[in-house]
Amino acid sequence: MERLTVELPGRMYEIHIGSGLLARCGPLIRAVTAAERLAVVTDSNIAPLYLAQVEESLRAAGFSACSVVFPAGEQSKNIHTLNLLYERFAEEGLTRGDGVVALGGGVTGDLAGFAAATMFRGIDLIQLPTTLLAQVDSSVGGKTAIDLPQGKNLVGAFYQPKLVLADTDALKTLNRRVLCDGMAEVIKYGMIADTALFALLEGTGGPAGLEGRIEQIIAACCAIKCAVVTEDERDTGRRAILNFGHTLGHAYELAYHYETYTHGEGVAAGMVKMLELEQKKGRDTAALGERLRALLRAFSLPEAIPCAMEAYRAAIGLDKKAKGGRISVIEVERLGEAEIVPMDKEALFALLEE
Amino acid sequence: MERLTVELPGRMYEIHIGSGLLARCGPLIRAVTAAERLAVVTDSNIAPLYLAQVEESLRAAGFSACSVVFPAGEQSKNIHTLNLLYERFAEEGLTRGDGVVALGGGVTGDLAGFAAATMFRGIDLIQLPTTLLAQVDSSVGGKTAIDLPQGKNLVGAFYQPKLVLADTDALKTLNRRVLCDGMAEVIKYGMIADTALFALLEGTGGPAGLEGRIEQIIAACCAIKCAVVTEDERDTGRRAILNFGHTLGHAYELAYHYETYTHGEGVAAGMVKMLELEQKKGRDTAALGERLRALLRAFSLPEAIPCAMEAYRAAIGLDKKAKGGRISVIEVERLGEAEIVPMDKEALFALLEE
Repeated sequence: MERLTVELPGRMYEIHIGSGLLARCGPLIRAVTAAERLAVVTDSNIAPLYLAQVEESLRAAGFSACSVVFPAGEQSKNIHTLNLLYERFAEEGLTRGDGVVALGGGVTGDLAGFAAATMFRGIDLIQLPTTLLAQVDSSVGGKTAIDLPQGKNLVGAFYQPKLVLADTDALKTLNRRVLCDGMAEVIKYGMIADTALFALLEGTGGPAGLEGRIEQIIAACCAIKCAVVTEDERDTGRRAILNFGHTLGHAYELAYHYETYTHGEGVAAGMVKMLELEQKKGRDTAALGERLRALLRAFSLPEAIPCAMEAYRAAIGLDKKAKGGRISVIEVERLGEAEIVPMDKEALFALLEE
Repeated sequence: MERLTVELPGRMYEIHIGSGLLARCGPLIRAVTAAERLAVVTDSNIAPLYLAQVEESLRAAGFSACSVVFPAGEQSKNIHTLNLLYERFAEEGLTRGDGVVALGGGVTGDLAGFAAATMFRGIDLIQLPTTLLAQVDSSVGGKTAIDLPQGKNLVGAFYQPKLVLADTDALKTLNRRVLCDGMAEVIKYGMIADTALFALLEGTGGPAGLEGRIEQIIAACCAIKCAVVTEDERDTGRRAILNFGHTLGHAYELAYHYETYTHGEGVAAGMVKMLELEQKKGRDTAALGERLRALLRAFSLPEAIPCAMEAYRAAIGLDKKAKGGRISVIEVERLGEAEIVPMDKEALFALLEE
């Protein structure tokens, strides 16, 4: 069992990482909220696996619990599902003092988190992430969001949870592709901030080698994210380093309508492409690129994704990190060190076209 | 010209109250935002009156301006119009560094404010309130919201503007009913916090007597609201006094599907009813009730609105101030002094039924 504390001005919360947390979530949640009623939000994949044990634990801890189940998939992360959550919260009689439990992966955490951030102008939120991606990234740091037809995560709020419980048993039911999806973000943490983590990952040789090391790996990722978020909650500066590989990654996801590649797959190819662009600018990233590609291969992640220039332009034009004609790209030249580099969008497009 | 400063931790902004502010909004807004592009959000009533002069002033100040016009009326304050704003912001190429100008009454301020609070997880917001209600209440204090079918303002965010410009010339185009709608909130401020304001209002004798005193009246209201909001931005304590008359007022609005009575009319009748309930509890509010009713009559505001018990129950069950089976009601026994009184919902229903 690992435990981290996130300390932000006026708000402090804990992240627990370990086995069996879902089945005993009730008393842990009881300790952090005065809510009487909790709405558990989850998707159609997760509900049959974990909803019953979570609701049972909540009720045993004295909560009145209800649940809202939405169709699994990124295509549910939109304003229509959000509206469904709002209306169900209202119908279920939630009040300002009550709360929302987000049980699931990144889509669930982002969507239910945004609903909690805005229902009654903000009610208590507890994150129960069940995918590796959610455990190392989306459930930590307080970013919540929905997608618009024009792009991912364009609407949202900064809203910190009261508690994050990352049950590592849930990872055992993930299929290999979803697990590897999360590994892309894990590898990213190594790339931007942690040479030891990167070496540890290289030592695993692939998914089978994660056994017995997963709590340590998740905790290392959360520690990096917490440090960055504590320094820059509102994402106006240093927090941008977490986006290494993401600007191009989002373009890949968008180019295939979020249907062909997962978020992690986009990020994987985005990291490799970014190192290539750095090389075109004269930086020496060849050896690091080779190590990165080998690690991605070990986790069945793509080293490249074909993408037309129009798709790059469409995605980058809407990127939240873009400001006017400029954009901040994240570059890694030496392992474990990330740099935020402002550049003209057109200069980025020119490099991509070269 | 009156000017107030709102000081909240890390965020400070000014409220300007006076003549001709809309036509010279550009340079004033230029001083508070680094935005390149501004989306002016307004409704179909206000657009023909003021949109052209606002856009012209913004462009003269170096902004790139676009506009989104939605159908006037409370029925537009919903998630569908919100979605329209999001998609237009995205289509118009707004980025994280840009901003939203809310030009209009309370519906526009609440809706555009919530859109600004959540687009790209928050972009700059400037309030240009054009109704008395918006100038004294909804544009100040950072509450933004949309309605759900289940009730008003159930979804929203706390989000402070960068600047509020209350152009008193805009009040001249208001019809009498809309002006008096705002007067209900003005009278409320006198009731809860300002005996001098209440006496000044009694001295006007009605709408005609506002001439020459309106800047002073608006500034007095904003000063009260600013003081309360500074003390309790998130509405977890003292800010509740601003809701005097509102719990019952919302019930009246809801009972007639927001079609028959304005917000101010609901609040007017709600304040009278609350004094009556206090009297049933043994407080001596008869003389104050007489003064209140006389002032409401002078501004053509209703002293009572018929309402069935089911309508009270439906509205109060969903009230954001309700927590579990309890609710906080705001009582005024002596002019200028408000008290927050927690009570059982059922006890409130029993008093209403008496």
